[in-house]
Amino acid sequence: MTELRVAVLGVGLIGAQHVDRIERRIKGARLAVVNDYVTEKAEQVAAGIVGCRAVSDPLDAIADPDVDAVVLATPGPTHEKQLLACLEHGKPVLCEKPLTTDVATALELVKREAELGRKLIQVGFMRRFDDEYAALRAMIAAGELGEPLVMHCAHRNPAVPQGFNSEMVVRDSLVHEIDVARFMFGEEITSIQMVKPAPNPAAPGGLADPQIAILRTGTGKHVDVELFVTTGIAYEVRTEVVGEKGSATIGLDVNLVRKSVPGAWGGAITPSFKERFGRAFDTEIQRWVDAVRRGPGTGVYVDGPGAWDGYAAAAVCEAGVESLNTGLPVAVTLADRDSIKGA
Amino acid sequence: MTELRVAVLGVGLIGAQHVDRIERRIKGARLAVVNDYVTEKAEQVAAGIVGCRAVSDPLDAIADPDVDAVVLATPGPTHEKQLLACLEHGKPVLCEKPLTTDVATALELVKREAELGRKLIQVGFMRRFDDEYAALRAMIAAGELGEPLVMHCAHRNPAVPQGFNSEMVVRDSLVHEIDVARFMFGEEITSIQMVKPAPNPAAPGGLADPQIAILRTGTGKHVDVELFVTTGIAYEVRTEVVGEKGSATIGLDVNLVRKSVPGAWGGAITPSFKERFGRAFDTEIQRWVDAVRRGPGTGVYVDGPGAWDGYAAAAVCEAGVESLNTGLPVAVTLADRDSIKGA
Amino acid sequence: MTELRVAVLGVGLIGAQHVDRIERRIKGARLAVVNDYVTEKAEQVAAGIVGCRAVSDPLDAIADPDVDAVVLATPGPTHEKQLLACLEHGKPVLCEKPLTTDVATALELVKREAELGRKLIQVGFMRRFDDEYAALRAMIAAGELGEPLVMHCAHRNPAVPQGFNSEMVVRDSLVHEIDVARFMFGEEITSIQMVKPAPNPAAPGGLADPQIAILRTGTGKHVDVELFVTTGIAYEVRTEVVGEKGSATIGLDVNLVRKSVPGAWGGAITPSFKERFGRAFDTEIQRWVDAVRRGPGTGVYVDGPGAWDGYAAAAVCEAGVESLNTGLPVAVTLADRDSIKGA
Amino acid sequence: MTELRVAVLGVGLIGAQHVDRIERRIKGARLAVVNDYVTEKAEQVAAGIVGCRAVSDPLDAIADPDVDAVVLATPGPTHEKQLLACLEHGKPVLCEKPLTTDVATALELVKREAELGRKLIQVGFMRRFDDEYAALRAMIAAGELGEPLVMHCAHRNPAVPQGFNSEMVVRDSLVHEIDVARFMFGEEITSIQMVKPAPNPAAPGGLADPQIAILRTGTGKHVDVELFVTTGIAYEVRTEVVGEKGSATIGLDVNLVRKSVPGAWGGAITPSFKERFGRAFDTEIQRWVDAVRRGPGTGVYVDGPGAWDGYAAAAVCEAGVESLNTGLPVAVTLADRDSIKGA
Repeated sequence: MTELRVAVLGVGLIGAQHVDRIERRIKGARLAVVNDYVTEKAEQVAAGIVGCRAVSDPLDAIADPDVDAVVLATPGPTHEKQLLACLEHGKPVLCEKPLTTDVATALELVKREAELGRKLIQVGFMRRFDDEYAALRAMIAAGELGEPLVMHCAHRNPAVPQGFNSEMVVRDSLVHEIDVARFMFGEEITSIQMVKPAPNPAAPGGLADPQIAILRTGTGKHVDVELFVTTGIAYEVRTEVVGEKGSATIGLDVNLVRKSVPGAWGGAITPSFKERFGRAFDTEIQRWVDAVRRGPGTGVYVDGPGAWDGYAAAAVCEAGVESLNTGLPVAVTLADRDSIKGA
Repeated sequence: MTELRVAVLGVGLIGAQHVDRIERRIKGARLAVVNDYVTEKAEQVAAGIVGCRAVSDPLDAIADPDVDAVVLATPGPTHEKQLLACLEHGKPVLCEKPLTTDVATALELVKREAELGRKLIQVGFMRRFDDEYAALRAMIAAGELGEPLVMHCAHRNPAVPQGFNSEMVVRDSLVHEIDVARFMFGEEITSIQMVKPAPNPAAPGGLADPQIAILRTGTGKHVDVELFVTTGIAYEVRTEVVGEKGSATIGLDVNLVRKSVPGAWGGAITPSFKERFGRAFDTEIQRWVDAVRRGPGTGVYVDGPGAWDGYAAAAVCEAGVESLNTGLPVAVTLADRDSIKGA
Repeated sequence: MTELRVAVLGVGLIGAQHVDRIERRIKGARLAVVNDYVTEKAEQVAAGIVGCRAVSDPLDAIADPDVDAVVLATPGPTHEKQLLACLEHGKPVLCEKPLTTDVATALELVKREAELGRKLIQVGFMRRFDDEYAALRAMIAAGELGEPLVMHCAHRNPAVPQGFNSEMVVRDSLVHEIDVARFMFGEEITSIQMVKPAPNPAAPGGLADPQIAILRTGTGKHVDVELFVTTGIAYEVRTEVVGEKGSATIGLDVNLVRKSVPGAWGGAITPSFKERFGRAFDTEIQRWVDAVRRGPGTGVYVDGPGAWDGYAAAAVCEAGVESLNTGLPVAVTLADRDSIKGA
Repeated sequence: MTELRVAVLGVGLIGAQHVDRIERRIKGARLAVVNDYVTEKAEQVAAGIVGCRAVSDPLDAIADPDVDAVVLATPGPTHEKQLLACLEHGKPVLCEKPLTTDVATALELVKREAELGRKLIQVGFMRRFDDEYAALRAMIAAGELGEPLVMHCAHRNPAVPQGFNSEMVVRDSLVHEIDVARFMFGEEITSIQMVKPAPNPAAPGGLADPQIAILRTGTGKHVDVELFVTTGIAYEVRTEVVGEKGSATIGLDVNLVRKSVPGAWGGAITPSFKERFGRAFDTEIQRWVDAVRRGPGTGVYVDGPGAWDGYAAAAVCEAGVESLNTGLPVAVTLADRDSIKGA
């Protein structure tokens, strides 16, 4: 079968990485179109790739007849319009989180896609494609831990860009653990409480860091997440699931070369999400490309979390932001999924 | 100097272990008297030890002129009266937790001892004497982690005796982490919230297990504790302190022999607190005996947590039990320590 | 650029894996031709792949104008003739080890390729492409361990096929560590001694297992390798390099999910080389395909160990087999590389 | 029973540690006499201990009627005469290694003790009392690893005193692994080969470091030991036993506090044998004191390796020193143990 012609919209940090992997590592796909808010950037990228051109309007790129599928790495506020265009043109799309920036529009997208009757939207929760997360999920699914009961997570960044505020800890960092919790337990989150301990003296003034999130699922499972984005250490992401028959942890030994140096033994930690999850992104995009290419036969153009997952995560984040202010548990209310046929 | 003559009151599970260690491993001390509610048990123990006799009334044992110091391993409800007798007779005493069974009497003991002007009461929080906990505390004290900000704990038992109820998870299990938190941060706990997730299907009906405790210290440090007493696994106790300059964990590699067996690598986990903390108990008792022997010269007859620590832990437990019912944070109110001269 | 058209010769265990990865994961290449001693097997494979056909004679496959490059996964004794054909037709070839089955023919191939003045032969020592081995090599190259002095290796298989004999332990298992030693130290092996301890009672009669290999490099570095191919455990491959400024180990924590189950903690071990080195094979083939595609521009059609590496490994193996009989150190004599222009 | 009155001969590095532990930690024993080649040193030590006096002649100290048992921490060359005196006076003795400095006198001591018909001599191979070594031995004894087949050891020191030479690596460092090998396998060593790789550039001129020892037991088990005494790192001692049913390693995670600091995770390593084996020494001396006190009833005054073990280790060391010169395997010939009644 011929190669999938992909448009990448947004060639910033993540988008540029996607361009690179599609160009160099992803089997069965090639870059047909790139787009960016900064036109010159897109043109520069296109110039280096045989058979690829820059298109200045993202909606034109989506509509382009040379484009079979779209990767959205544009800023969140533009997602709604671009996703609607993808649905309108029947173009499969892998959308980096967030789905949209508010719950109402996210739900609207869920409904529109459901009306189409075709799964076209995949949301970029890449951790589901990480070998370790996948192995942990498989362990749970196989019943090795019995009924899962509790999950502990740590999400630590060495530093954050200027302007990163307390809400962004919830919307940009915690959102991954929200999806992980839903993925591991196979349930919705029904309540969230944000705890703000005394802040790290090294954190910028006004940034509540660390934060602790306390989640509860529909059947009463407990999840706690330490979010700490100014550790000065490295990118440390850890998850432990405690079940009826055992517990299992990932992210503990973050590098497999173990050194002895004067007075100490140990290993390196990945400095950023790129080193930690680069391979998960590869797997995600490869499996998405494979699914899209099989799509005409199967009617399914995704292989991973979909629009509903993006909507549910957004709803939990919104409740989390509310709890940031009160410190109290906030209930998460979702639409009735069963009533949306095809969601 | 002559050996310290010790009376052990209560020769049940813990008391019998203390008898054994004083008889076989503790330098500078010997058993002079043993006592137990079940007289025959005490007599049987005494019969096996040269120079030791059974005394049927605990208060007689305390008052006995052949007794220099007392180890209290009797049931909690009898502690108040026995500790008061120790103070009255000026006998140094190592009291297994709890100090007393309610906050008011615990505070009363703090005051009585303070009036005496001599530190005579040590409370048996043995974890402070464990090599790992001590190393972690030393690391914090040396500033290696910078300002400590967050502490995560897990406290897992394979099983509990019949009749163990939800309150006992707080009073008998969590009490250790409460002391550890105060020890590590050097601060009082000011608030506690108990979370009850969906229970372990394998837990006895009516027992809330697992439970999650969320503590906050005076300066806003966060502590969370997973309490899970029916894991069926082993005795797993783990603590991580996350600080401004780094994080440190103890209790992870619970046994140093690492095996490869068909399909798997790993090590054993200590089956019970006896294997995990047996050496900590040895260190605790040895250091206590050493301190008591030096006491006439120093005026201090303890080397470890004292009456105030027992009182403060009791106050947090009481608030924890209240939170068990509501699920909401409960403030912990302590007496003004500065106003109790010598506390 | 157009996709590289690859012929895979030999579609047994390893060859079939290469077919699968080229078909599904390797960017920039596609299968044009397959061949196997068992014609039906090749035809069956070809039938499942669009644009691929079976060719019954391996030399025809190599000569085929639709073939740009060759993957050799045929039995060792056929390699010499097939490699010569590749050189004759100027076809880049990735040859699974061994290069050839004896030292003289291996050297002959080195010379023939050198005469051509083009690097066309790559030998399939896939460990060099494993993330861990690559990281360890990078650590040494960066001087992090100072001068490397000693290397310890363990190479353990759960079981071996019937008919596996003592020589094959050297030729098929040890050969990988021989290449690893040359890769890590950047030096030739000049001496080898094989030690045969008392055999594993569970090993088949006549098989010397375990065996210990003791290697020495040109500048006197020491390498020891435990070879144990009937462990009944799993596929365990471990390497430690001890240097002037520190030591580093890979292969210790063989799986990153760490479980606590009744009485024990630990992780899984990869059952076979496929799980352990599957990703290394992917990297190897991808980088080889990339290099071959760049070849017309660069004049280099390899990206990894070449003919000389295959020859040097063969020479050490031959000496190892001799030492198997005597138990004494045997010197390894190599041709003078400098005298072979282009080797 | 009354306390055992102990004489410590030699109060240098190890002797002073024994004085300290007997004075502060060993139950059932007290220091009666100390002796040292430097009289003032002994007097200074005695002055600080109630009931202890300095005796200037070691043979007088052994003969002293106030001395029940002797700890020998004097230089090796004086051991023979002092041990003979202990036997003559019927005084139980714990002798730090070596038993004596040559094989002939060591064997003579074995015979003398055997003639007495009472086990009076224990040799200070303290590793047998280390929790990890003991656990590994117990694992083997319980058959958990099946038939043990191979043992790998590393013995690394950060630095050595001036004047430490290549022979001392065998006699003072390797001697511990020789005893460990005999302990684990329960067999004699019958052959030893010393390999001298290219030396560590940081080692003093003339010191062969690292060295590799290759041992073989009576039934053909293989042991290799890396000896590296100028690592600049820490005191790292590691042992792996590979058996028919599994393998087990000790000394890997050398400290149980695990830290994350900028860019790295890991733990501390014990800086010297004192931190690594301090507790093993405590256990050794406590068990020896207990055994000596039970001696009059049991007729056995040791609880650990005896004169024969000291002799056998000396014989292997002597062969090792011979191999240092030739690089070839040297056979170890021991006296016929069965012919020495009571050895």
